[in-house]
Amino acid sequence: MDTTGSSDVYEALLTRRSVRKFRAQPVADEAIERVLTAAMYAPSAVDKQPWHFVVIDDPQVLAEIPSIHPYARMAASAPAAILVCADSELAHGPGYIPQDCAAATQNILIAAHALGLGSVWCGVYSQPDREAGFRRLLSLPESIVPFSLVVIGHPDEQPAQPDRYRSDRVHRNDW
Amino acid sequence: MDTTGSSDVYEALLTRRSVRKFRAQPVADEAIERVLTAAMYAPSAVDKQPWHFVVIDDPQVLAEIPSIHPYARMAASAPAAILVCADSELAHGPGYIPQDCAAATQNILIAAHALGLGSVWCGVYSQPDREAGFRRLLSLPESIVPFSLVVIGHPDEQPAQPDRYRSDRVHRNDW
Repeated sequence: MDTTGSSDVYEALLTRRSVRKFRAQPVADEAIERVLTAAMYAPSAVDKQPWHFVVIDDPQVLAEIPSIHPYARMAASAPAAILVCADSELAHGPGYIPQDCAAATQNILIAAHALGLGSVWCGVYSQPDREAGFRRLLSLPESIVPFSLVVIGHPDEQPAQPDRYRSDRVHRNDW
Repeated sequence: MDTTGSSDVYEALLTRRSVRKFRAQPVADEAIERVLTAAMYAPSAVDKQPWHFVVIDDPQVLAEIPSIHPYARMAASAPAAILVCADSELAHGPGYIPQDCAAATQNILIAAHALGLGSVWCGVYSQPDREAGFRRLLSLPESIVPFSLVVIGHPDEQPAQPDRYRSDRVHRNDW
């Protein structure tokens, strides 16, 4: 195997886990900018980079989130969250919105982990009630599609690290 | 900012770029297993882990790919490719298939980069002709949804590293 790469980077992909409990400590603006930078370095179909990001760190806005998203209750007491959105007028097509935005979301999760933060991806896309709720809460224009909510902060839990490799999911040159 | 994390990991997210030209050198089985392991450590909705992966390294099978996917011509001369698929019976729902599979695909790209390999994500999902083509080529069962083709190998090009951060895509607590 080529060993020019960094095994730290590889290990980070395996040690990143969803974190749902956060310390009260705020997330520095610089850290938010760094995770959003990583998001914008994700690939996108035909390089359209159709994403927008709404950073939510106003406690009053965070407190509204559980009424919109039943599985994002932790947002109410988290220091910050990021709503990943697509501009449907920029995207290569509607089928590429979830692909482009999921790649950006995954980069946010990994970047947060690399910076010592914890985060959790709360699904919004394909859930019309959640989409409508975030559209109202954050005054999103009609062309903007809310995709995912990443709740982020300094971790206050250490999730388990189970072995997840499954050889029965790997096929070779045919099913 | 918390500095317990690794800046190498963060930098890897910014230096990963799509690679479309590969040396003839094969990709070691161990490297393929490592990138697939990283894929299986991606998050998925309700932790369903609905993915399957078809590793393609038979030159005769690789040679068929350009007739299925017009933007994956490089696969014919690449050492390997991975078709990322979802099992629609395992997924939390059809709207989650692209989210779960895109997260896994993005982890493959980053893991490959971490191991000194190059790769490119060729979109399949939401393109019925490409889905049907891979279904036929690889004898995929009816319940399996082909999502993306990652062509992978030892890089034979060094893509440019443009600055991609755009502050006009970042909003705060409201649009």
